Amino acid sequence: MAKRVFNFNPGPAALPLEVLKQVQEELLDFKGTGMSILEISHRAKEFEEVNNQAMALIRELAGVGNNYKVLFLGGGASTQFSMVPMNFLAAGKTACYVDTGEWASKAAKEAKRVGNVNVLYSSKEAKYDHVPKPGQVKVPADAAYLHVTSNNTIFGTEYTDFPDAGSVPLFCDMSSDMFGRTRAFDKFSLIYAGAQKNLGPAGVTIVMLKDELLAKCPDNIPTMLNYKTHAEKDSLYNTPPVFGIYVVKLVMEWVKKQGGLKQIEAVNRKKKDAIYKLVDEHPNYFKGTVQKDSRSWMNLTLRLPSEDLEKKLTDEAKKAGFVGLKGHRSVGGVRVSLYNAVPLEGAEKLAEFMLGFMKANPK
Amino acid sequence: MAKRVFNFNPGPAALPLEVLKQVQEELLDFKGTGMSILEISHRAKEFEEVNNQAMALIRELAGVGNNYKVLFLGGGASTQFSMVPMNFLAAGKTACYVDTGEWASKAAKEAKRVGNVNVLYSSKEAKYDHVPKPGQVKVPADAAYLHVTSNNTIFGTEYTDFPDAGSVPLFCDMSSDMFGRTRAFDKFSLIYAGAQKNLGPAGVTIVMLKDELLAKCPDNIPTMLNYKTHAEKDSLYNTPPVFGIYVVKLVMEWVKKQGGLKQIEAVNRKKKDAIYKLVDEHPNYFKGTVQKDSRSWMNLTLRLPSEDLEKKLTDEAKKAGFVGLKGHRSVGGVRVSLYNAVPLEGAEKLAEFMLGFMKANPK
Repeated sequence: MAKRVFNFNPGPAALPLEVLKQVQEELLDFKGTGMSILEISHRAKEFEEVNNQAMALIRELAGVGNNYKVLFLGGGASTQFSMVPMNFLAAGKTACYVDTGEWASKAAKEAKRVGNVNVLYSSKEAKYDHVPKPGQVKVPADAAYLHVTSNNTIFGTEYTDFPDAGSVPLFCDMSSDMFGRTRAFDKFSLIYAGAQKNLGPAGVTIVMLKDELLAKCPDNIPTMLNYKTHAEKDSLYNTPPVFGIYVVKLVMEWVKKQGGLKQIEAVNRKKKDAIYKLVDEHPNYFKGTVQKDSRSWMNLTLRLPSEDLEKKLTDEAKKAGFVGLKGHRSVGGVRVSLYNAVPLEGAEKLAEFMLGFMKANPK
Repeated sequence: MAKRVFNFNPGPAALPLEVLKQVQEELLDFKGTGMSILEISHRAKEFEEVNNQAMALIRELAGVGNNYKVLFLGGGASTQFSMVPMNFLAAGKTACYVDTGEWASKAAKEAKRVGNVNVLYSSKEAKYDHVPKPGQVKVPADAAYLHVTSNNTIFGTEYTDFPDAGSVPLFCDMSSDMFGRTRAFDKFSLIYAGAQKNLGPAGVTIVMLKDELLAKCPDNIPTMLNYKTHAEKDSLYNTPPVFGIYVVKLVMEWVKKQGGLKQIEAVNRKKKDAIYKLVDEHPNYFKGTVQKDSRSWMNLTLRLPSEDLEKKLTDEAKKAGFVGLKGHRSVGGVRVSLYNAVPLEGAEKLAEFMLGFMKANPK
């Protein structure tokens, strides 16, 4: 078996080793059923328990009550880009979006296929190098909802404080930072997240929404795209992504065992500080691509003095056991993704490696 | 570890033990990457290879050429119920459906939300105890497509010969019997199947469609519901269900190793014969619920002389290591699902057990 690498991929990404070991250990026999979790009926009581526990753990970690429904869906966050307006952007109303990156922009684009959209703020002209400050987004009181993207995986920005939507329901794509730090989750009426960053494997999307919203879901949209369909059946209207839900449950147990989001946040703070310290201390070598107060804790984007050096760094890093550091083609450079399952040791060792690289490769 | 049971669940269902063992063995380190398949980027060359091989194996086993695209999507076959008409039922056209069970009926119902639907044939009045004979379905030449459901999981019927759609594109939901027997796959313009029966785990849906169809996909539907989106990117437009695709690939390799569909069919024939023999030899005790020429090879439905005996049989069977035999609530009785990964030994031992049960529990 190859040595386990430090995995800085932007997603799918690192999962906790102890979760992987548990999956491996019980893969041929799930809880004494004589079947694999991959073979078990989604109607079996053993799976029902997994599903219920996963929902309960997500609510518990988010600190929200039973007035929130938790759903496990297929199709990725990209499918949510359409489901959200199909369910909640009624004719004659306008949905408001904040455009802070590629995924935020795609979300707005899909909503435009459904109805009226007002992009209240965009940082596109500034190459998406920041998210708006709270006061910069003014939400009309009659908006259907306000949609924001908490963390921008490609451009490396993240909200610390979200816009105030007033009485307008606040919706959020939290795909790349959900449960990476503490949040006032109960300020959001709807949150969705592809699992493959902090929450689990690719193939399952988590939706958490206030049940009062469900009354608004129209009856004339495709059954599978109606949140009510899934909320009423605890995601068991049809066969759900069973294995994905099972792994999400294990990851949520792991998060809880770490001490919950408070402790996760404390560790993630140290991780991102280890890397941003390089940027702050050697700004002419490691050049951050975003404004300081918009820096992401999850995806840290930086450029080196030349593309040759960037390539050399990612290549040498890979050989040294640090993988997934290549920046997205639209930003270039280096991107360090520090999701929950990346250990503090990984961030610290990478920082050390990068400092060594700088010294060995002066510009 | 509990002894491995014989798993007769209707889906999610049994997977080949050697596939499960391979998944287990390489779960912590996929192909020397130092990462789990659950952690690997969907853009990594190691995954690209898995994706390409899975597509190629499906085409190879189906005996179709490169003019068919193979897609791996989320959302289950139920999402296909909507995607099919959204892509191929243009305004002013009529889509034709054959109603042979609950899922066939749901497919037609979703299509009605999109456009004009003509249900050419229904066996509903006969409690779905048969599928139509080829000549019984007359397809208007100007139909957008004809939609059939090859196997009816709940009611236990299956086509041997499909209706002749003439020049009209033939679409098929093959969720519960794809690759369970040989078929002239190239007669179909579009096939879709939730993987969780013969093909892999829950959470991935396989679509195989002729690429000439893609020109018809309209541009104004949600991007994620457009087949073109996924066909153009080999299912990598967004993060696909990576793990599900990986397991599908392993299952397809296993099918090939068994000798392909011809050999699979030969074994499945023996499996279903072992059970139907009981029905034919003891028709007053094991009462088949469907017409003989519509019998499913995959889901064998039968009633016993009383509900008490049915319950007793499924309970005792479970204790003896035969699980998943309870009939669907809408049919009752006993349902024996004999998907590809159920070994011949399982079907034979179950038949023996059932015969013994009959003798020990006369009506």
